[in-house]
Amino acid sequence: MEGVKKSHYYNYSTLGVLDLKDVGVDDVSLKITHCGVCYADVSWTRNGHGDSRYPLVPGHEIVGIVKEVGSNVRGFKVGDHVGVGTIVNSCRDCEYCNDDKENCCIKGCVLTFNGVDVDGTITKGGYSSYVVVHERYCFKIPDHYPLASAAPLLCAGITVYSPMMRHNMNQPGKSLGVIGLGGLGHMAVKFGKAFGLKVIVFSTSISKKEEALNLLGADYFVISSDQEQMKALAKSLDFIVDTASGDHPFDPYLGLLKIGGIYTLVGFPSEIKFSPASLNLGLRSVSGSITGGSKMIQEMIDFCGVNKIYPNIEVIPIGYVNEALERLIKRDIKYRFVIDIENSLK
Amino acid sequence: MEGVKKSHYYNYSTLGVLDLKDVGVDDVSLKITHCGVCYADVSWTRNGHGDSRYPLVPGHEIVGIVKEVGSNVRGFKVGDHVGVGTIVNSCRDCEYCNDDKENCCIKGCVLTFNGVDVDGTITKGGYSSYVVVHERYCFKIPDHYPLASAAPLLCAGITVYSPMMRHNMNQPGKSLGVIGLGGLGHMAVKFGKAFGLKVIVFSTSISKKEEALNLLGADYFVISSDQEQMKALAKSLDFIVDTASGDHPFDPYLGLLKIGGIYTLVGFPSEIKFSPASLNLGLRSVSGSITGGSKMIQEMIDFCGVNKIYPNIEVIPIGYVNEALERLIKRDIKYRFVIDIENSLK
Repeated sequence: MEGVKKSHYYNYSTLGVLDLKDVGVDDVSLKITHCGVCYADVSWTRNGHGDSRYPLVPGHEIVGIVKEVGSNVRGFKVGDHVGVGTIVNSCRDCEYCNDDKENCCIKGCVLTFNGVDVDGTITKGGYSSYVVVHERYCFKIPDHYPLASAAPLLCAGITVYSPMMRHNMNQPGKSLGVIGLGGLGHMAVKFGKAFGLKVIVFSTSISKKEEALNLLGADYFVISSDQEQMKALAKSLDFIVDTASGDHPFDPYLGLLKIGGIYTLVGFPSEIKFSPASLNLGLRSVSGSITGGSKMIQEMIDFCGVNKIYPNIEVIPIGYVNEALERLIKRDIKYRFVIDIENSLK
Repeated sequence: MEGVKKSHYYNYSTLGVLDLKDVGVDDVSLKITHCGVCYADVSWTRNGHGDSRYPLVPGHEIVGIVKEVGSNVRGFKVGDHVGVGTIVNSCRDCEYCNDDKENCCIKGCVLTFNGVDVDGTITKGGYSSYVVVHERYCFKIPDHYPLASAAPLLCAGITVYSPMMRHNMNQPGKSLGVIGLGGLGHMAVKFGKAFGLKVIVFSTSISKKEEALNLLGADYFVISSDQEQMKALAKSLDFIVDTASGDHPFDPYLGLLKIGGIYTLVGFPSEIKFSPASLNLGLRSVSGSITGGSKMIQEMIDFCGVNKIYPNIEVIPIGYVNEALERLIKRDIKYRFVIDIENSLK
């Protein structure tokens, strides 16, 4: 199918054409309709990790429509709505891959963009018109679920859903603190409410209060610098999900956890620093997490479909993406940019 | 019983006499035979936490023989061998006390020495000839178990046993790293071997190698500054128990944990500091712990009795305790001092 062998892509400053890989027997070829804008796109386009390989095509919250499938593909058919997240390959043979936790692949999983695939090619992300992916790393989007809204589920959604499930944060009646109200944090609030939790949002800015309570449905909003408010919550929370990537103190938040409470870290501040007493005296844990495996991604998408959980998005044309990246740096987004690839990248 | 109303005590520099509390209906009166020397004794005798109340009688690894019991006491009788650990009272009414986790008592448990009991009295520890304790905080020592050896179980033993059990570190065939080979660390090695684990000891000093392997039964000994040895263990351990109270880097150890591995902290360094990547990329957890509840203490003592697990001790007379505290500061002990109270404090 010659039509999908070339794909236009938007490389954050130039429009180009890339050679797509052939559609293998296990592959799904997608016409991309939407791609979410993750902070990872900022980091790698700016060589923030020192390992960027140019020309670099960002984007790992990909949604599209199946145009072609390989002869072995059983899970997808032409016309299906499909999502692709942060991973497009893994060894498929280790204990983690065999347990559908490809994000933990012992040989290292292949990232959706700026990754080195097993054949040595550099992976290209979703700021592009087409993509070809092994069906294992493709996920079914329910037909009724808006394609644009589905995009942020593939990274922001799974990044908070995965640790919340792993640490049993889906127990109704328990209390969840959410630190940071960006793409990840606002999804943690939505999942928390869907799980029947009491959700408390912590923020440094009062400007987010009304939306946190009235739009996202949080139960309480706390300015983290307000020592009186913080003190009143001492030892009261079962869980905290920390989505902040900026540096902040940890002890004040750890002290809010009940005995045995769990603090889950999904952001990447420059360092984690706290007093041992903050953990030891309360038998508390700090746990790290990154994305999720294939089984949990599909479960999360289905959960969002059934429970009508939709990320709050600002849909933009591809030509706006440089400005969007700049606004993301300034945190000027409620709560996720989604590029309308289909209608703006021709 | 007038005989137990007074108790001689050794206040780390003076011999004195204290008034014992009356033996209440739920109390057990113990003639103390032995008391272990914990680093807490160093800290509080030297006002290390700024809250020492003098005259201060240290000691919370107490072993003795029952001399008298209150009319309601059902668990103990005169002549029983009994241990008392770090806690002598709690509210006995909160969710944690009701779950036999008195160490987590919501109103705060009363420490065995330098604590303020519910009646306002300052608690006095085991460097003393007698003690009167509510039976809930007394534990049965098996008749055949040497009294001197039992003492360190009451703090050092339970402090490592409790988090090991809470985090399922008793799964045969799994691997356990032990950081620090003092009173706590050497017990972690013994429990690890009794659980059927592969045990790796990390130390800064090669001088501990032979004893770690041949006396304590560890499988491997690693000098933590040896980058080659450390690198060879990357992503290989299921658990790490960190008993070090001195400051040390955490990232090199976190990198040794498998995906989902658990790092348990029982020491009190001045701060915990690590990179978020060390946790996030491996879905790892850092968990804190302090002592254990009554049910688990008795379980641990019984486990030691059945499995013939004995702390390695140096038995000393009470007159040697000041020198012992000094040696403890210099870490010049393998692995726990136990004071022979019965034969040296008359």
